[in-house]
Amino acid sequence: MNITFIGLGNMGAPMARNLLKSGHRLVVYDLVPAAVAALVSAGASAAASIKAAAAGAELLITMLPSSPHVKSAYLAKDGVLANIAPGVILVDSSTIDPQSAREVAAAATAHGNPMADAPVSGGTGGAAAGSLTFMVGATPDLFAQIQPVLANMGKNIVHCGASGNGQVAKICNNLLLAISMIGVSEAMSLGASLGIDPKVLAGIINTSSGRCWSSDTYNPYPGVMDAVPAARGYTGGFGADLMLKDLGLALDAAKHVKQPVMLGALAQQLYQMFSARGTGAEDFSAIIKLYSQGQSR
Amino acid sequence: MNITFIGLGNMGAPMARNLLKSGHRLVVYDLVPAAVAALVSAGASAAASIKAAAAGAELLITMLPSSPHVKSAYLAKDGVLANIAPGVILVDSSTIDPQSAREVAAAATAHGNPMADAPVSGGTGGAAAGSLTFMVGATPDLFAQIQPVLANMGKNIVHCGASGNGQVAKICNNLLLAISMIGVSEAMSLGASLGIDPKVLAGIINTSSGRCWSSDTYNPYPGVMDAVPAARGYTGGFGADLMLKDLGLALDAAKHVKQPVMLGALAQQLYQMFSARGTGAEDFSAIIKLYSQGQSR
Repeated sequence: MNITFIGLGNMGAPMARNLLKSGHRLVVYDLVPAAVAALVSAGASAAASIKAAAAGAELLITMLPSSPHVKSAYLAKDGVLANIAPGVILVDSSTIDPQSAREVAAAATAHGNPMADAPVSGGTGGAAAGSLTFMVGATPDLFAQIQPVLANMGKNIVHCGASGNGQVAKICNNLLLAISMIGVSEAMSLGASLGIDPKVLAGIINTSSGRCWSSDTYNPYPGVMDAVPAARGYTGGFGADLMLKDLGLALDAAKHVKQPVMLGALAQQLYQMFSARGTGAEDFSAIIKLYSQGQSR
Repeated sequence: MNITFIGLGNMGAPMARNLLKSGHRLVVYDLVPAAVAALVSAGASAAASIKAAAAGAELLITMLPSSPHVKSAYLAKDGVLANIAPGVILVDSSTIDPQSAREVAAAATAHGNPMADAPVSGGTGGAAAGSLTFMVGATPDLFAQIQPVLANMGKNIVHCGASGNGQVAKICNNLLLAISMIGVSEAMSLGASLGIDPKVLAGIINTSSGRCWSSDTYNPYPGVMDAVPAARGYTGGFGADLMLKDLGLALDAAKHVKQPVMLGALAQQLYQMFSARGTGAEDFSAIIKLYSQGQSR
């Protein structure tokens, strides 16, 4: 298939590589020439502009940092919609607010281009390994058409309902993830301060009603689990600043529909406090440092 | 074995019944005569006072509402320690703060009575079925001695470390449980307000990093799961006021060791807000009602 891929950052580049490996012909575009050059050396063709990238595409995928980038890429005069043939399918894998995703998809539909939102989870590791989860907002027909292509980049391709619902699923999951991770941080830190062995406490929680992914798969307390960021100084994994971005999207979306999210709002402030210390590049489980006693780490 | 059981409330009564069924000889005491009478008709002997109940016991178990009750039962002039033979093992299954548990256990040890804290989870259903989880704070020797007796009332008997650590494990787990339940309530309510099918959202969360017991086993959103309190008007289960009690214990313990618990403190306020509406007897998953839109339910 002739696929155009726009946005070759930490996530987009390995995703585009997996499309090449699966035998698709790829035209790529990015503002950073080195990012384009790296994909060209892997077999892609470079386009000099979005307009040029859009020409001849059978499917166009974008992977961009935030909703202003997405809106500009699709809606600007020199953007995708002004320069692509009607009928070409559009997939945005950026993580943005559901409202913007629905606006752009509505504009695309009006132009004759079916469009899906398909944000991912799994991080740069999952992008490289082709094991991402795609959360897709699309009509059933459109989902059926793009599913095989997304399967070249991911392991779980989940249909979340109509346009925008891929974004809804992602930000709701990550809202809960942030709350759970802070909850585990508080429970583990409190237990340790009260004198229980953190490994024993984690074992009890993981077989009880406090059980959660943040505790049984990604425990933030150092020494409780191997092969998690807490075991390697909170390097790798999912950066605290990326979690902060997703919390911002969840809170903005909540404001839009006047939905209270009390713990979510406090979670955002706590990640903001963590980021303000200059440690936002650490894994998001490092939030437990806000709770540590007797040392400023 | 000759066992004395003090405290025959909603939890204590079915626990005592299971000891009788296991063939132990039971002497029981409670302030409520009807509670004593019910156990006597099941085969127990009634004692007229704690002093009388303590005489001849080989093992004494208490199941009381809160730490003032526990302190009074053990430490008062007419209480357990003043009236029991040195050497008799003491087990308190009440849920109280770890500090009080350790104080009482230290007094018992000074009197020559080994004492364990052994709070439970599993609710009145688990107490009746003999499937409770016991979280035990005790020396390894003491744990080995009481484990077979507790196994007559529970399925999982977990050694959590030294004195008080049973209470620590319980309140830390329940702190995290309250936070998770509110987190799930916020994520599910936000998703529904943003237009995703709650069942679809729960399915995605349950296979993603937001996965937790409150979502995959006890989802608070009506219609998502069968056979949970949300499917039967939030009746049965674990009452919101009991969760509020456990949050109070966790927050008090945290204050004692100057441990911040930011989400835990907000969770306490939210359960307080819920209880203030007069609905504290509903299951704790009904906290999601604070987040519902378009109707005051």
